[in-house]
Amino acid sequence: MKERDLIDRIVSKLPPSPPEILHGIGDDTALLRVRESSDLLVTTDSQREGVHFRWDWMTPEEVGYRLVVVNASDVYSKGGKPFSAFVTLALPSGFSEATVDKLYDGILAGCLEFGAYLSGGDISRTTGGVDLTMTLLGMVPKDQFIPRNGLVHGDRIYSIGRPGFARAGYLALSRGDFSEKLSEPIATFKRPRTFPSFPSWFLKHPFLSASMDSSDGLGQALSSLARSSGVSIVLDSAPDLDYLSPVANVLSVDPRKLALEGGEDYDLVVGVSEDKAKEFESVARDLFHDQSHDQVTYWGRVDSSGVAGAVVTDGTYDIWDWGFDHVGG
Amino acid sequence: MKERDLIDRIVSKLPPSPPEILHGIGDDTALLRVRESSDLLVTTDSQREGVHFRWDWMTPEEVGYRLVVVNASDVYSKGGKPFSAFVTLALPSGFSEATVDKLYDGILAGCLEFGAYLSGGDISRTTGGVDLTMTLLGMVPKDQFIPRNGLVHGDRIYSIGRPGFARAGYLALSRGDFSEKLSEPIATFKRPRTFPSFPSWFLKHPFLSASMDSSDGLGQALSSLARSSGVSIVLDSAPDLDYLSPVANVLSVDPRKLALEGGEDYDLVVGVSEDKAKEFESVARDLFHDQSHDQVTYWGRVDSSGVAGAVVTDGTYDIWDWGFDHVGG
Repeated sequence: MKERDLIDRIVSKLPPSPPEILHGIGDDTALLRVRESSDLLVTTDSQREGVHFRWDWMTPEEVGYRLVVVNASDVYSKGGKPFSAFVTLALPSGFSEATVDKLYDGILAGCLEFGAYLSGGDISRTTGGVDLTMTLLGMVPKDQFIPRNGLVHGDRIYSIGRPGFARAGYLALSRGDFSEKLSEPIATFKRPRTFPSFPSWFLKHPFLSASMDSSDGLGQALSSLARSSGVSIVLDSAPDLDYLSPVANVLSVDPRKLALEGGEDYDLVVGVSEDKAKEFESVARDLFHDQSHDQVTYWGRVDSSGVAGAVVTDGTYDIWDWGFDHVGG
Repeated sequence: MKERDLIDRIVSKLPPSPPEILHGIGDDTALLRVRESSDLLVTTDSQREGVHFRWDWMTPEEVGYRLVVVNASDVYSKGGKPFSAFVTLALPSGFSEATVDKLYDGILAGCLEFGAYLSGGDISRTTGGVDLTMTLLGMVPKDQFIPRNGLVHGDRIYSIGRPGFARAGYLALSRGDFSEKLSEPIATFKRPRTFPSFPSWFLKHPFLSASMDSSDGLGQALSSLARSSGVSIVLDSAPDLDYLSPVANVLSVDPRKLALEGGEDYDLVVGVSEDKAKEFESVARDLFHDQSHDQVTYWGRVDSSGVAGAVVTDGTYDIWDWGFDHVGG
């Protein structure tokens, strides 16, 4: 398989390009036009064989699709929408052409679903396993970016989604436990969903002080939000985890620990000012509960007098360093 | 080494951010502002251990610096200037912290030199060798993008640089031949240069019909230009290769073949309308000959009546498929 033939085949699968893509694949760089009313969002995330995925757990389409979700999730969490994607693919020598096609089928399905146009990339050989990296560009209306560092004293912290579900799926796959009750967690792990409706929703209800996605686990997301904002977060001792308890029971793990340790969830974690909390709960539940059983879960409140970056509860938990760490261990 | 500590250390080395970087490292996405008078350029290229570099040939600083050059070269070749960089780093388990620091020293030196601000990225573990991927964003004044597909009948084709030099360096390193005459080719291979002055030069002398960089070899660049433009290129049978012949002699290879096969050169290959060719030669030589011995070399002319994409000469050469191929082989 020649690099050029592979690129030709990918290009032949692309729909017509939208107006903001002035030059896509086939030149030294892509040429894009950002709307004057918008700023540019950029994120980059990888899926590496043996680190983020295993071939005996996931199909190539699922791997490709997930590559798009993990990036789109970052863009949506900031209040923006994806528009242009770049994919770097590294292949071991002799890798199956049919599998490459399926990887791109998954990538292109994700790009189509989330409005990102595949605009360029790079293909090379690797001495290791298959490695996919995407850089995803989004646009956000000027001054509508929702940062991590906006938490202030008294803010309420919520997750939108089902923190712990993907981790439960990972544990089920690791143990080879395919009980009926674990089928949805497994599906969540293999094919995570994200929140394309969040940016429009936020424009109508702009009362979030901070937002991020929980790709490295809810605990680590809470820690990052607190650290960025220079505040601490005091966790509620009894979050409503009815969505997770049956699953946690099957796996014999503590549901709260499962939710906080998480990882690969791609849920949203947001801060809401105290006086808007009730309104937020109501409008967020209306929108998100209808979609794929996502929950709006209250986790705790912001304390500006505590240790910056600390996430504490009644003394039992200190999750400063919880969650996935992709380098150390 | 924890991912967060590593990121903190990288951030501590960054200079203050320029105004177009509204949010850099430390959020789910970067937030950037593109000038209203400009369009956005995006390119992505990798340096993979065992594929693009070997530790016994290059220092970590050289690897990091080269990662920036290979990307900046694409942006400059389109008439634009880099402004924002994203780096994805994959590390084997237990990889030396000191080496990571040196990789980033090289990356940051390149970013500083070429005006790109390190704005985000991703760090993860890999089961293979070290892998660095950069996505580089540039800005180009609206309607100043120089594409690959602009060649028309009669255009003259030139290279700016020293095609074949990096390949000679690669051959010298492969053979362990450290003759005096090969020291400059080796230096060119390890530490390629690029053309930061090209975009400003082009604004003053806007008579190029097409442009690209020769990262995959001059032959492949000619082939890509011809293919994109739907024309053929007829090579001059005796290009002036005085800059390369002494080196080719030491290596006992044909200088023309060495120049065309090339690879890792990061020279510019451009098309100029026939009536502007003399003026181009004069002004380009004035500018580029003064800098690091770069040459302006005439290679041939564009023929719109030939086979689209073909690069031919007197029958001896057909370089349709010459140059590096990062996948096949």
